[in-house]
Amino acid sequence: MSAAEGYGTLHLLPVWLGDSGGVEQLPPENIAAVARIDLYFAEHEKTARQMIRRMVPTISLPSLEIHRLDKDTTPREADGLIAMMKGGRDAAIVSEAGMPGIADPGALLVGAAHRASITVVPMIGPSSLFLALAASGLNGQRFTFHGYLPVKPAERKAAIKRIDGDAQRTGAAQLFIETPYRNDALVKDLVESCSPNTLLTIAIDLTQPGGSIATRSIVAWRSRVPELGKRPAVFILGTSAR
Amino acid sequence: MSAAEGYGTLHLLPVWLGDSGGVEQLPPENIAAVARIDLYFAEHEKTARQMIRRMVPTISLPSLEIHRLDKDTTPREADGLIAMMKGGRDAAIVSEAGMPGIADPGALLVGAAHRASITVVPMIGPSSLFLALAASGLNGQRFTFHGYLPVKPAERKAAIKRIDGDAQRTGAAQLFIETPYRNDALVKDLVESCSPNTLLTIAIDLTQPGGSIATRSIVAWRSRVPELGKRPAVFILGTSAR
Repeated sequence: MSAAEGYGTLHLLPVWLGDSGGVEQLPPENIAAVARIDLYFAEHEKTARQMIRRMVPTISLPSLEIHRLDKDTTPREADGLIAMMKGGRDAAIVSEAGMPGIADPGALLVGAAHRASITVVPMIGPSSLFLALAASGLNGQRFTFHGYLPVKPAERKAAIKRIDGDAQRTGAAQLFIETPYRNDALVKDLVESCSPNTLLTIAIDLTQPGGSIATRSIVAWRSRVPELGKRPAVFILGTSAR
Repeated sequence: MSAAEGYGTLHLLPVWLGDSGGVEQLPPENIAAVARIDLYFAEHEKTARQMIRRMVPTISLPSLEIHRLDKDTTPREADGLIAMMKGGRDAAIVSEAGMPGIADPGALLVGAAHRASITVVPMIGPSSLFLALAASGLNGQRFTFHGYLPVKPAERKAAIKRIDGDAQRTGAAQLFIETPYRNDALVKDLVESCSPNTLLTIAIDLTQPGGSIATRSIVAWRSRVPELGKRPAVFILGTSAR
């Protein structure tokens, strides 16, 4: 599995899951990579600059080249971004939060890198989905991530019932996320639509101050429905790990 | 979501994915936690001691308490482990590799912690599944982890065909792992049984020297079937991210 000669390495650079946290939350080798790399691909240049400066406060921002990579990037544009790595220039994809390529548009560029046989190096860092799953106590041996559920109420309830059925039938953990301002509506639908004995994990603001993760049966959540507000959340349905 | 009073916090402590790597691969806050915590739950005491000493070389190993937590741990034993955290004593689950609770027996104890309303804190660190998925270029917006495939040849080929069909039909990335000494037999079955245009990611020895990750179509892999040997690997089937 030899890499393309004459190209740099494409790093996947994870970032913090919120506004709090310093370099104590990231591996020192990531910080060292940021101090060295000057070519970045990101959804929003401003956020990318903030994240880079948060990692290396002394960095010279004007010397960085940051190119847009989002859901509207075409495969042809992705090839153009990859071409910037000719001559052995290393680059990094920076996500808005967490790990590029997971619940995030970075995958398009990573796919283009593989087609060009460029070496891709995923760096260690936070992923809200994996932190939530590990801390859920639900089945980490088999699981499915569904992304966002449908927005329309009837379709959403149908999706919840289907996912609840999958959890009960297979025992696999079922993960999904929601746009923060719809969190509380989703929780209401979950406690109304799921089986009483299904376990629901609600993970809010992971790695951030005030963050919490709790796993309870639907019947237990019904007796005290939490108000999440607009904080970033991961939801998991499942049965006991055994 | 208030936590149980009088109990410490249960940390999920991720460790390296192999024998190489130092503290530059882990967040400094993890190292600080290890320097402070003296109660651990682990599958094998010897490996746990090695990992702890790798994080804090100056640590006094005799002062640590390490209790067994594996697939044979009963729910009653798990409750007993949790009881050790009374009096505000913090503890950590240490995996054999990567993140406790994911493809690992830690989930049982995490479930017991939630039933006792103990605060669970997942720490940032490596997870071979998420690193492989991020670096695959496959669909990170929807994915399923199947754990280990069946061992018997006929059942395994049937499982591969079913999973390949799921990938083609839904576009979701399909992850699985294999006992290392069966890697090469699995690769042979994959190139024989999957659709020619399905994409297969093979991630070997992630974060370790000589580690690599490559995504190619089944037809491209067929023309050069790799020999993986007994190195830890993650396999992903999927279609293009778009």
